Amino acid sequence: MSDIKIVTAAMLVIGDEILSGRTKDKNIGFVADYLTGMGIDLNEVRIVADEKHAIIEAVNALRRSYDYVFTTGGIGPTHDDITAESIAEAFGVPCEPHPKAMQEMAQYYASRDMEFTKARQRMARTPRGAELIDNPISKAPGIRIENVHIMAGVPQIMQAMMDAIAPTLEGGQKILSQTVDCPYGEGTVGGPLGEIQDKHPNTMIGSYPRYENGNYSTQIVVRGRDQNAVALAIKDVKIMLKDVML
Amino acid sequence: MSDIKIVTAAMLVIGDEILSGRTKDKNIGFVADYLTGMGIDLNEVRIVADEKHAIIEAVNALRRSYDYVFTTGGIGPTHDDITAESIAEAFGVPCEPHPKAMQEMAQYYASRDMEFTKARQRMARTPRGAELIDNPISKAPGIRIENVHIMAGVPQIMQAMMDAIAPTLEGGQKILSQTVDCPYGEGTVGGPLGEIQDKHPNTMIGSYPRYENGNYSTQIVVRGRDQNAVALAIKDVKIMLKDVML
Repeated sequence: MSDIKIVTAAMLVIGDEILSGRTKDKNIGFVADYLTGMGIDLNEVRIVADEKHAIIEAVNALRRSYDYVFTTGGIGPTHDDITAESIAEAFGVPCEPHPKAMQEMAQYYASRDMEFTKARQRMARTPRGAELIDNPISKAPGIRIENVHIMAGVPQIMQAMMDAIAPTLEGGQKILSQTVDCPYGEGTVGGPLGEIQDKHPNTMIGSYPRYENGNYSTQIVVRGRDQNAVALAIKDVKIMLKDVML
Repeated sequence: MSDIKIVTAAMLVIGDEILSGRTKDKNIGFVADYLTGMGIDLNEVRIVADEKHAIIEAVNALRRSYDYVFTTGGIGPTHDDITAESIAEAFGVPCEPHPKAMQEMAQYYASRDMEFTKARQRMARTPRGAELIDNPISKAPGIRIENVHIMAGVPQIMQAMMDAIAPTLEGGQKILSQTVDCPYGEGTVGGPLGEIQDKHPNTMIGSYPRYENGNYSTQIVVRGRDQNAVALAIKDVKIMLKDVML
């Protein structure tokens, strides 16, 4: 099984508003689904405040541990949008106006009879050596520097940026997943399920409890990169459930 | 301002299913709102997989950096529920059956004519020296060890545990928050807003863009622990908005 390619990622959500509860994050679930669909394992997520040291520490920890890092938030035009300059500092490079971003944004605002204010020009700054990520919605670009992808926090814009990034990412072998609905609680099937996991080490068997209207049920999910291994484990899960029913 | 009490917290979400996108987290927003309401600053959130080393590393980093840590997930009865034993290892203590939890759960299942299976007994294990957090819904308790609070992942149960924990937490001085709706995008008000922030260092001024039906607007939020300081900053924001309108 050693020739299976595994690609890992982490996500860094940047924003006081998420930590205060004022805004409920909608990006983590989207990125998780998106990466899973590409065969990239999202292994860790962190949420930090709009504080330079918190951003630097997190981005440096994550970019060294995972193949890809995706950040959301903090790239708007206001004083509390400090993601670009913080990540520049994490890489030890200056944060400076990107000529292509400056030119395209100047055109964009001119064509809309809007002033290309100093605040808007903040959004054209990138860490030196970075590439731009296209933003088809509001022009101010995302930023890629090495393995770190800096995206907007507004979900619609973040999603468009993810689409722009996707062709540049190398996916790994996808994790296949099969689900069995189980009418029993985890306490009933937990023991036998652990034995099935031991018997099928090439799979990851998870169980997800549901609690609705006073009743417990469980979804049993078998995941793995080898279709045959997943199918064999699923077979054992179904046999186990029949035994429990008796 | 140095006599203002600041209490900090971090949250650790444990679960493969959040990282794969299969389950969308509903606990972060709840805990964020809850702590903000108590005057406790949620400063960082991490999401990690059901992997012992990932849990140990995260819980040790967070418990040393913040006054309180709250974890969700991984305390059910199945083989992949390894939060209790991982956190025991993080503290360097054994994970063992807690006499009170064993007794209460045995009674609970007996009264329901349900077997107190080996799998269910897993849920009565705690790191040595830990206290139990009451679970009025399904009995299997949460766990407190030092400043770390270990809660269930199922939102209804987590919320009940949070209510049980709340009286034991020491809140800080609450952050007050006032919002001004602004009909302009951040690019228009970003510059002047930065100047207002500089003039009011005892406040945190945030701006949150909205993009709906092709239009940008902004919510400007002034936060701070000093009511007067917040009011003065809000006054300047409103004056600024009138100036922009002219």
